[in-house]
Amino acid sequence: MARPTPLSGFPEWLPDGRIVEQHVLDVLRRTFELHGFAGIETRAVEPLDQLLRKGETSKEVYVLRRLQAADEESAGRARGDSDGAGLGLHFDLTVPFARYVLENAGHLAFPFRRYQMQKVWRGERPQDGRFREFVQADIDVVGAGSLPYHYEVELPLVMADALGALRELGVPPVRILVNNRKVAEGFYRGLGLDDVEAVLRGIDKLDKIGPDAVGELLVAEAGATSAQAAACLALAGISGDDATVVDRVRELAARHDASTDLLEEGLAELGALVAAAAARAPGVLVADLRIARGLDYYTGSVYETVLVGHEDLGSICSGGRYDTLASDGTTTYPGVGLSIGVSRLVSRLLSAGLVRATRSVPTAVLVAVTSEELRSRSDAVAAELRARGVPTEVAPSAAKFGKQIRHADRRGIPFVWFVGDATQDGAPGQDEVKDIRSGEQVPADAATWAPPAEDLLPRAVAVG
Amino acid sequence: MARPTPLSGFPEWLPDGRIVEQHVLDVLRRTFELHGFAGIETRAVEPLDQLLRKGETSKEVYVLRRLQAADEESAGRARGDSDGAGLGLHFDLTVPFARYVLENAGHLAFPFRRYQMQKVWRGERPQDGRFREFVQADIDVVGAGSLPYHYEVELPLVMADALGALRELGVPPVRILVNNRKVAEGFYRGLGLDDVEAVLRGIDKLDKIGPDAVGELLVAEAGATSAQAAACLALAGISGDDATVVDRVRELAARHDASTDLLEEGLAELGALVAAAAARAPGVLVADLRIARGLDYYTGSVYETVLVGHEDLGSICSGGRYDTLASDGTTTYPGVGLSIGVSRLVSRLLSAGLVRATRSVPTAVLVAVTSEELRSRSDAVAAELRARGVPTEVAPSAAKFGKQIRHADRRGIPFVWFVGDATQDGAPGQDEVKDIRSGEQVPADAATWAPPAEDLLPRAVAVG
Repeated sequence: MARPTPLSGFPEWLPDGRIVEQHVLDVLRRTFELHGFAGIETRAVEPLDQLLRKGETSKEVYVLRRLQAADEESAGRARGDSDGAGLGLHFDLTVPFARYVLENAGHLAFPFRRYQMQKVWRGERPQDGRFREFVQADIDVVGAGSLPYHYEVELPLVMADALGALRELGVPPVRILVNNRKVAEGFYRGLGLDDVEAVLRGIDKLDKIGPDAVGELLVAEAGATSAQAAACLALAGISGDDATVVDRVRELAARHDASTDLLEEGLAELGALVAAAAARAPGVLVADLRIARGLDYYTGSVYETVLVGHEDLGSICSGGRYDTLASDGTTTYPGVGLSIGVSRLVSRLLSAGLVRATRSVPTAVLVAVTSEELRSRSDAVAAELRARGVPTEVAPSAAKFGKQIRHADRRGIPFVWFVGDATQDGAPGQDEVKDIRSGEQVPADAATWAPPAEDLLPRAVAVG
Repeated sequence: MARPTPLSGFPEWLPDGRIVEQHVLDVLRRTFELHGFAGIETRAVEPLDQLLRKGETSKEVYVLRRLQAADEESAGRARGDSDGAGLGLHFDLTVPFARYVLENAGHLAFPFRRYQMQKVWRGERPQDGRFREFVQADIDVVGAGSLPYHYEVELPLVMADALGALRELGVPPVRILVNNRKVAEGFYRGLGLDDVEAVLRGIDKLDKIGPDAVGELLVAEAGATSAQAAACLALAGISGDDATVVDRVRELAARHDASTDLLEEGLAELGALVAAAAARAPGVLVADLRIARGLDYYTGSVYETVLVGHEDLGSICSGGRYDTLASDGTTTYPGVGLSIGVSRLVSRLLSAGLVRATRSVPTAVLVAVTSEELRSRSDAVAAELRARGVPTEVAPSAAKFGKQIRHADRRGIPFVWFVGDATQDGAPGQDEVKDIRSGEQVPADAATWAPPAEDLLPRAVAVG
């Protein structure tokens, strides 16, 4: 077997990179639980008809098949569902969550708050920050029948809290950009543009193709006059983190005689969100009327998030309010949620050298072995240290101490423990522990010694 | 969309079940890290040719295909690897780990210790404790070129430690059964049976079909005489947790004139393991000469683990020593590892009612809302409690307090917080907190109050 090469689009980290990713996940989990979100995990597969409900994403799905299914069919032994036919890997965590809510509605208390951190798969062409297999971390609140607007304010603030907690690890600050579909739709309809989705699709391309091309697109595909297209672009140009944003939209609408009840409803919501955000996470949430979100199921607030200084990466945390994603015919379950692209974020943290692990192993202490006959004494010291919470391993062989120290150094283990020689009358000897970074070696007792707190476990820290 | 039904073989837990699973995973991770194992995660897919190297498992693989790959091919736009052709979902974590080691050998320090907790997929017919998608938790140590025997002693003891730590959660005790391929092979060859794999395959069926049928199988398929078959069954009947096991095997071999150097080598190893286990985890590890393990890559120790009182579940933690799983042509990487079937274990814990979560949400406190106008005051209390590590959420609506308390009760939240009315001169009022289980309500200050430690977070506890 020759040395295998990585598979494009399927990222894997070396152990030190995994420590960074694990710390990110731990901080997110901790924050989500502080806010009362219950963790769930859904299976990786969903029925294809569910995955393909939205035509837009159908191209990205990986379909499953059991290897011998074809053989069995030809032998007349097909066993119903068991060939995996009709199953695909989920491409996000929202569709599986909606299905989970419907399936378990009788066992859940609504509004139901959940977080979910799992891999998802998309058969897209891989590129920087865009993978075929990646980890998402989602929070959603779903109501039975109705869901008050205040959750549209709360959820991005939870994410602001979570992403803010990551700053201790060295993650750059973020800016969460907020818009409201009601504002956009109300404005477009006020202008006389009824193909709202076509306008949103055009506006969604602003970052990629620029305002001139989007203007042409709106004329060509959304039936806009150039004046209407210019008004849409003017709306998309408005942003800010205080109440003047609402005033500016209102003025623009008045100028174009485009005010509608829907617009006013959206502006009231957006204004409330901006006001709450200014009080609870100043500078983090910004109203940005350019945010459109391609997916068609959003009905209220929509969110995108940029890593400050890394705007080229695209959004690392997106979502919105949805009203019709889950319905069992009797009850609909409206919700609001956001999803962090964990792999995209971690990949940038590592590739740009922003965050590093303080070491690549959990081990704080390597217990040296004097001779293979005495290995059990080293094992006993290790067990004693572990019982007090100190991650410890025993040297692989009774090599010369210099070689054992070099092994610790190569593994990134900060301390090497030497078991004292028993005295001639059999009394235990004096153990010593060496900090191999400073070279300092001191007497130590496995029943009481502990490493400095910052050396106990590997940590993720900002570089530089 | 009608209410969806569960997919057989793809287990999912309700939030309280997930808390139990998450606690199991947390305890395992903690123990593995205490023993110096670094966590890694590998992608879910591997090239099919790697997955099919061992013919035995080929039937269980789920193959991937991008949904529109066929369209593209017919349109002459096939793009190499991008259709997912030639990829399958991994069916264990050992094959991906071996590939990871080869791919990253230049960046790893050997012996390399890693743990890995991920989902795997097998297209098997689902039954009790046997799933198509399930979580495994693996530890392995891999050397470059060689790996000393003492790791075959250490690894099952790490698992004994990990599974022992789970007893605090209410998991029943376990018994780890150990055998050594060298003993089995040395004995069979000493008897004159050279088709060792055929004998092992037969012995592996003991639990399923019983000794008589296995005896017939050995005659029919392994070329054994009935006397040889009887000797193999006699070997498989030996078990025990002290040195007499080795003596009994040696006597049996002498009686059949079946002693070989390989047998003696295996017995020396097995004896060392039993002795170390008796000192470090008395009663947990048992030598059992019946343990065969179907997979053909094991070359030394093999392990299986039963949950005491739940032997019908089959092994919940298996593995062994392998010498030839990973090689890049220049260096081979021998290893030893064990894998816990987390889903199988958790499924039994839940279905047999052995372990339960103390509540189904992380939330310890629900802050009541007096009126929607005053929601921000409740938000502020919640933020203050969270800042001190108390998981808190705010009531969904300013309903009557009785209804808000019932909402907490339905969600399983133990405490409800009432924000005091401001006095007429604007001074803040006195907050109160109610334990809704006892009904006790006391004055409280969000800057200092904390729930009892056992109520801070949901816990997994033994039932009864």
